[in-house]
Amino acid sequence: MTLKAIQKLVDDWICQFEEGYWPPLSMLAAVVEETGELAREINDREGYKKKRAPDSTNLGLELADVIFSLVCIANYYDIDIEAAFIEVLGKYSKRDMNRWTKKSSDTG
Amino acid sequence: MTLKAIQKLVDDWICQFEEGYWPPLSMLAAVVEETGELAREINDREGYKKKRAPDSTNLGLELADVIFSLVCIANYYDIDIEAAFIEVLGKYSKRDMNRWTKKSSDTG
Amino acid sequence: MTLKAIQKLVDDWICQFEEGYWPPLSMLAAVVEETGELAREINDREGYKKKRAPDSTNLGLELADVIFSLVCIANYYDIDIEAAFIEVLGKYSKRDMNRWTKKSSDTG
Amino acid sequence: MTLKAIQKLVDDWICQFEEGYWPPLSMLAAVVEETGELAREINDREGYKKKRAPDSTNLGLELADVIFSLVCIANYYDIDIEAAFIEVLGKYSKRDMNRWTKKSSDTG
Repeated sequence: MTLKAIQKLVDDWICQFEEGYWPPLSMLAAVVEETGELAREINDREGYKKKRAPDSTNLGLELADVIFSLVCIANYYDIDIEAAFIEVLGKYSKRDMNRWTKKSSDTG
Repeated sequence: MTLKAIQKLVDDWICQFEEGYWPPLSMLAAVVEETGELAREINDREGYKKKRAPDSTNLGLELADVIFSLVCIANYYDIDIEAAFIEVLGKYSKRDMNRWTKKSSDTG
Repeated sequence: MTLKAIQKLVDDWICQFEEGYWPPLSMLAAVVEETGELAREINDREGYKKKRAPDSTNLGLELADVIFSLVCIANYYDIDIEAAFIEVLGKYSKRDMNRWTKKSSDTG
Repeated sequence: MTLKAIQKLVDDWICQFEEGYWPPLSMLAAVVEETGELAREINDREGYKKKRAPDSTNLGLELADVIFSLVCIANYYDIDIEAAFIEVLGKYSKRDMNRWTKKSSDTG
């Protein structure tokens, strides 16, 4: 499934309801709420007291909840996530190339 | 570009460096940092004092920064975002169908 | 109750347990989790669909949860919140004085 | 300085400007922005690459920024933080007493 297909899927989902997209600051609050649930899930798993067996199901759902809430914001503002993503990768390539240690090539 | 392709792209990017993925709670802190920048961007645009002309470029980059940081977490835990996303949409369909007002059909 | 008293109260509370303070990135994840619950509470109240009667009890508790999680971080790093707070107010006074509209004095 | 004094100080600060308090979802976005800066500060210090010498000044200011943004929300809703804080400590005492390991008494 492409990013464009996902943006379309979310748009179809939202637009079936009369309420449509929430105002941006409400959508942002939803992102924050979902990020909080992701934080709890990761803290349970990695924090001081590791409570859970390594089951990735819940974590996957929490991640997808956050991404859904971000796609809503992108759709509201007519943002093409794929294009933005490619631009960001280009930005990282310039910025971070000397910040981290490049693996040495195997040849030679 | 598919979600799988994006997960692969991020993995290739991270794995070119010896440092590789950060520990999960550090990756989460990165998500929080990027979400903070997204919040500032939306608040500038929608908040009490609307300062900016409607240019979506920065907002798109901030959104992509957040998504990049989430894809890192997904990759670290071997989570298939596409599968999780489809599961989440199914969950919403059950949960929210009666929460919002379905648009009435045009027929009839 | 002074801020110093609150920092002491939180320290006494944490130090009664053998586990003591969590590592910083876990405490940060707790801040994020609590901020997410605050976001839900405010969104319920102010968002697209206002659901609740204006009862401030839950909101107060969510705010206090966030503050508790921040005080833990401050204590861990031996930060005097009161001193930092006063410094921040000074910073705002310099930075924001011309950013907002000063109320005109009432005296003619 | 008491919590009440801090709430008053913030109120005096905000009310000197004609703009006054922002709408709640904008104030929440400010909390998220400041929490993002706190996250960066802690990640720099504790994350994969520890970059900084143990200077607590910045961290203290970031913490105070977050607390300031929370006090704004409390003031807007007429919430008495001290009362909420005491209630929360009572809640933790009930909930967490058996969750953590109580230090054994020294006597005996």
